[in-house]
Amino acid sequence: MSETSRPSGRRADELRPMALQRGFTRHAEGSVLISMGDTRVLCTASVENRVPGFLRGKGEGWVTAEYGMLPRSTHSRMGREAAQGKQGGRTLEIQRLIGRALRACVDRGALGERTITLDCDVLQADGGTRCAAITGAYVALVDAVRTLQKRGDLSRDPVHGAVAAVSVGLVGSTPVLDLDYAEDSGCDTDMNVVMNDGGGLIEIQGTAEGHAFRRSELDAMLNLAESGISQLLAAQRAALEG
Amino acid sequence: MSETSRPSGRRADELRPMALQRGFTRHAEGSVLISMGDTRVLCTASVENRVPGFLRGKGEGWVTAEYGMLPRSTHSRMGREAAQGKQGGRTLEIQRLIGRALRACVDRGALGERTITLDCDVLQADGGTRCAAITGAYVALVDAVRTLQKRGDLSRDPVHGAVAAVSVGLVGSTPVLDLDYAEDSGCDTDMNVVMNDGGGLIEIQGTAEGHAFRRSELDAMLNLAESGISQLLAAQRAALEG
Amino acid sequence: MSETSRPSGRRADELRPMALQRGFTRHAEGSVLISMGDTRVLCTASVENRVPGFLRGKGEGWVTAEYGMLPRSTHSRMGREAAQGKQGGRTLEIQRLIGRALRACVDRGALGERTITLDCDVLQADGGTRCAAITGAYVALVDAVRTLQKRGDLSRDPVHGAVAAVSVGLVGSTPVLDLDYAEDSGCDTDMNVVMNDGGGLIEIQGTAEGHAFRRSELDAMLNLAESGISQLLAAQRAALEG
Amino acid sequence: MSETSRPSGRRADELRPMALQRGFTRHAEGSVLISMGDTRVLCTASVENRVPGFLRGKGEGWVTAEYGMLPRSTHSRMGREAAQGKQGGRTLEIQRLIGRALRACVDRGALGERTITLDCDVLQADGGTRCAAITGAYVALVDAVRTLQKRGDLSRDPVHGAVAAVSVGLVGSTPVLDLDYAEDSGCDTDMNVVMNDGGGLIEIQGTAEGHAFRRSELDAMLNLAESGISQLLAAQRAALEG
Amino acid sequence: MSETSRPSGRRADELRPMALQRGFTRHAEGSVLISMGDTRVLCTASVENRVPGFLRGKGEGWVTAEYGMLPRSTHSRMGREAAQGKQGGRTLEIQRLIGRALRACVDRGALGERTITLDCDVLQADGGTRCAAITGAYVALVDAVRTLQKRGDLSRDPVHGAVAAVSVGLVGSTPVLDLDYAEDSGCDTDMNVVMNDGGGLIEIQGTAEGHAFRRSELDAMLNLAESGISQLLAAQRAALEG
Amino acid sequence: MSETSRPSGRRADELRPMALQRGFTRHAEGSVLISMGDTRVLCTASVENRVPGFLRGKGEGWVTAEYGMLPRSTHSRMGREAAQGKQGGRTLEIQRLIGRALRACVDRGALGERTITLDCDVLQADGGTRCAAITGAYVALVDAVRTLQKRGDLSRDPVHGAVAAVSVGLVGSTPVLDLDYAEDSGCDTDMNVVMNDGGGLIEIQGTAEGHAFRRSELDAMLNLAESGISQLLAAQRAALEG
Repeated sequence: MSETSRPSGRRADELRPMALQRGFTRHAEGSVLISMGDTRVLCTASVENRVPGFLRGKGEGWVTAEYGMLPRSTHSRMGREAAQGKQGGRTLEIQRLIGRALRACVDRGALGERTITLDCDVLQADGGTRCAAITGAYVALVDAVRTLQKRGDLSRDPVHGAVAAVSVGLVGSTPVLDLDYAEDSGCDTDMNVVMNDGGGLIEIQGTAEGHAFRRSELDAMLNLAESGISQLLAAQRAALEG
Repeated sequence: MSETSRPSGRRADELRPMALQRGFTRHAEGSVLISMGDTRVLCTASVENRVPGFLRGKGEGWVTAEYGMLPRSTHSRMGREAAQGKQGGRTLEIQRLIGRALRACVDRGALGERTITLDCDVLQADGGTRCAAITGAYVALVDAVRTLQKRGDLSRDPVHGAVAAVSVGLVGSTPVLDLDYAEDSGCDTDMNVVMNDGGGLIEIQGTAEGHAFRRSELDAMLNLAESGISQLLAAQRAALEG
Repeated sequence: MSETSRPSGRRADELRPMALQRGFTRHAEGSVLISMGDTRVLCTASVENRVPGFLRGKGEGWVTAEYGMLPRSTHSRMGREAAQGKQGGRTLEIQRLIGRALRACVDRGALGERTITLDCDVLQADGGTRCAAITGAYVALVDAVRTLQKRGDLSRDPVHGAVAAVSVGLVGSTPVLDLDYAEDSGCDTDMNVVMNDGGGLIEIQGTAEGHAFRRSELDAMLNLAESGISQLLAAQRAALEG
Repeated sequence: MSETSRPSGRRADELRPMALQRGFTRHAEGSVLISMGDTRVLCTASVENRVPGFLRGKGEGWVTAEYGMLPRSTHSRMGREAAQGKQGGRTLEIQRLIGRALRACVDRGALGERTITLDCDVLQADGGTRCAAITGAYVALVDAVRTLQKRGDLSRDPVHGAVAAVSVGLVGSTPVLDLDYAEDSGCDTDMNVVMNDGGGLIEIQGTAEGHAFRRSELDAMLNLAESGISQLLAAQRAALEG
Repeated sequence: MSETSRPSGRRADELRPMALQRGFTRHAEGSVLISMGDTRVLCTASVENRVPGFLRGKGEGWVTAEYGMLPRSTHSRMGREAAQGKQGGRTLEIQRLIGRALRACVDRGALGERTITLDCDVLQADGGTRCAAITGAYVALVDAVRTLQKRGDLSRDPVHGAVAAVSVGLVGSTPVLDLDYAEDSGCDTDMNVVMNDGGGLIEIQGTAEGHAFRRSELDAMLNLAESGISQLLAAQRAALEG
Repeated sequence: MSETSRPSGRRADELRPMALQRGFTRHAEGSVLISMGDTRVLCTASVENRVPGFLRGKGEGWVTAEYGMLPRSTHSRMGREAAQGKQGGRTLEIQRLIGRALRACVDRGALGERTITLDCDVLQADGGTRCAAITGAYVALVDAVRTLQKRGDLSRDPVHGAVAAVSVGLVGSTPVLDLDYAEDSGCDTDMNVVMNDGGGLIEIQGTAEGHAFRRSELDAMLNLAESGISQLLAAQRAALEG
């Protein structure tokens, strides 16, 4: 695949235009609208002064996530999970991933007996929503922690480092970065990579949708992911300094 | 209550600043973000070429609505209905109201065997979400119908007239228009009024939360509602001409 | 429509024959079978010495309602909600209305930390079940409070005044009182009105099913409702003195 | 136990006063209120011109039952199954029993592709509700079949014989007939017996709640049951001739 | 029916080959695989140091059971109840029966405030699974109690006597013992009998699937059940001594 | 970590003892009990002559999986998902993984309009259940396909190649193969790897539970996984030839 053959005209190693809009809504302690191309996810961080039962009395906090798609965030309308009476397997899988990813940068002892819930609601979907959710939720989390710090509720910063996530994939045998929906639905391998700002891997999930992939292809995809994530981490830093 | 005593400083007969942003998201046939002060509701209209079982084969279409609040659209985080496994009574009541209100301006024979679903999702809540949803969903509905017309799918316009809605209430004994959350949670009577552009009443729902209300108070509230709704109808027209 | 053109032969301002049978079942603190023509609703009031979580420790009581229809209370058999695994939107809407209406005549501080649950189960339906439920539940509520008073459990009467409800509607352009099923399913506007014995409005819910209604039509309907409710309040008084 | 030692003063072999009120409600093809002492169950039979999927196209009908208790049919209020979102194990067990019992007297080929649903709703409970439901549902079933016959819908009578049910038990070591709630909650063995009018056993379900029971005790209980059921069958015949 | 006419070639009074394998899995306090011919049920007994709410603080324990079938334990695959979101009526009925049967041989005071849960999971079904579950669960229960005794947690043995269960039936008019699936699905009467080692009846549940059965047929079936259960009780004793 | 420091005494690159028992139950077209040390999973493959709605009429088959754990397969008893009314997120995630893994070696056109459901039920858990499920389900799948071939239902073999899975992880900084529960609950990184017999990667899912992992650590883990999976593939071949 030549570099210009992506449906979007992007180079294989090029992220979509990305924006992080802090303070998108008023009530949440952190509220960030992340746009990755046409994918737009509203990430809010809500602080509550209680923890789940298994943590009660241990002096530790909890960070968890919930994920949802508005019914018409997608090309054709999906059923509303609240009306169907349950969250589907994909939703549960994604929100478990987001929660794990964010907990990887939180010192739960420093958080104290509080829960921070990261609600990631997809307003518009064009591929890569779970990765966008992680990248945006990190910024919302930091904003929520800053709110707690301003209130004088924390003695030390519970957030260490940063996390961001991006998808990579094989289209045919070409590794590409940050797949949009058109690429995602036709690719051979789809991989989501979560990393921290120390260059460490937090989570990798790669699935061969067409032919199985080779170790060398895995390496090429991970190289792309590292490069993309370092740009996303820089964008997070810029947004948080803004 | 003097005119300046509302928490927001508004006059008793003054609407909140209002905006209708068409095309807020890309995939839906109609997509409108309505803002009434700090209340923001995303209204999408989705067209599907099928009807519920009770209408099959009758040559008529259907218009229905679903309503939801993002968990942190509110001051403190609410549980996500999808995670709780069911929609609450308030949600069901509101979406039934929205559906009835919009069906009041649709000729279902002219729509043909199609369903238009109006998804009204509250991004940020500050009172009056169900009325904002109706007012915004009308614009999304018109946009969806125009999309069908552009495709040549309709022989005549199924939308006749317009509908809009506003809340009114009694704060103490003073009638006020378009209550925000601070007023809504403390008022004595809360009423939602849906009207069409012919000055007809589509729906009224009034509840005494404190003392019972008098016929004269009802009249005063309805006068305010008529005045507010005529401004909302004008704003809809302006947005649709934009 | 001339006065004799109603399917039942009633005048436009004429209630159906009405009966209130107290003590219909034995176990409940209050148990009333209300008949409005062929509509028959069993209303029981159950007292429990606990309150919902949000009221615990506040020294206040709670009044709430649940509504159900026996599967064959209607012309054709409806699915049993217990078997379907959830209460429908109409059921939830009605039981919320009944609860609000009854709370409007209760001093919850005087009730103390008790819950009174009003179960309104429709044995036979012929229109107007929600209004019949409110009118009957009031009598069951008073009986339950009298039971508590006989036990010496209350220092003062928590019930102030009385509430009753009736439906009104427009058949064509004629306002009529207390619609039965034949009228209800064909009318242009359907309105439920709840009032107290001081002539105050507790709740009005009016819906245009056909053409939108005018303020003058609303006034005519409310006049009918006032007249009907005063008869229902008298019937409640008579039953409670019996 | 002497014969007069039952809480109710009944002899060990004495049924409670029993009544069968046909036509209790209007809409159902059969509607019977059965009273066994203070136990009152409303049994309706509803005819629908369809059968479950596993019978479609086989030319056979189906008879099934649903059972419910009104929340305050009992001494203390029970949760409403519709609100809890599912039917409990006891409910499912009872309605499966009622359905089996009634199918035992129906020629499903003669019924044709129709379903008769027997809804048995307990208005007031004082022990023995499942047996009362079977005995009452038989009468409702016959009424429904007669309705079909009057319409000319059946070429031959699908009901052969009759079924009725009664509870028997051991209080201490004394066998007693037709236990009321006071006896039922304290007895050592509780048995429900369904028989037909040919003296055949349709179903027996006996449970040792205290000490295990002997074959001789089983025989004594079955003798009582036979005697009680023959009285119930006579009452059914009398009611159906009335 | 001659003695050799059973599909399996067994005599009318012959049990299937039976085996009890203790310690089938490692984690449970008691774990028994029971085989009755091709029917194989894994019965585990789990001890927890808590009791249901209605027993809290009363110094008594609880014994309860849950029953499940693996989706392909049967001839054709059944839906998985966990995926369907509820346990069916048959499942609930069976697990209530197992729980009652096992509680009949337990002194709950001697157990102390503990719950023993008997999970009976059918790995392979060929008729008689509920009876096999009871017979196997008894052995698992004894093993769990022995585990508690070895830990020194019990001052006296809470298990008194033994319980076992078998099915009997009428094939045509011939009484047969321990029906397999081929017989069960075609028999006229199906009866499950639970007895203790003192010869007492704990539970009998007999259903006429074809013609009603006579008292003499009931007696013949109970004679077969007594004989079969005494063999099962002997097998339990042998297994527990092994 | 020296090679002997694993709790089990295994070398870092040593699989647990492994066994594949075909024909473990009778009814399923394929039925395999896989043991990986103390982890035992019953994998059945069921063939049905229908496909999900989205494939109807396309001439293609479907392969899907369901996963469950018996309540006492684990150290302490877990709630039964059927009783809780839903499958948890972990269950859904695992069964989606198993389904994807097995579909990777199936030519769905060659399968024709059939569904093969792989039920993977954990009888005993000691870590690595999802990987064992995949490895065992492959053998069950092949047995089911052979059953279809014997019946003459397939014109060509729909299974191409083989798939197997193993877990690897970092304990401290030492990569280890095939973690048991003791290792799994304390490790820093946990990774599940699915590969085919051509050396291609089907799926990798790696999660940092403690510190983030490096590319070099990922490589070391993947090397271990390749070595383990090649042994598992050999064991599958041996079992299928047996």
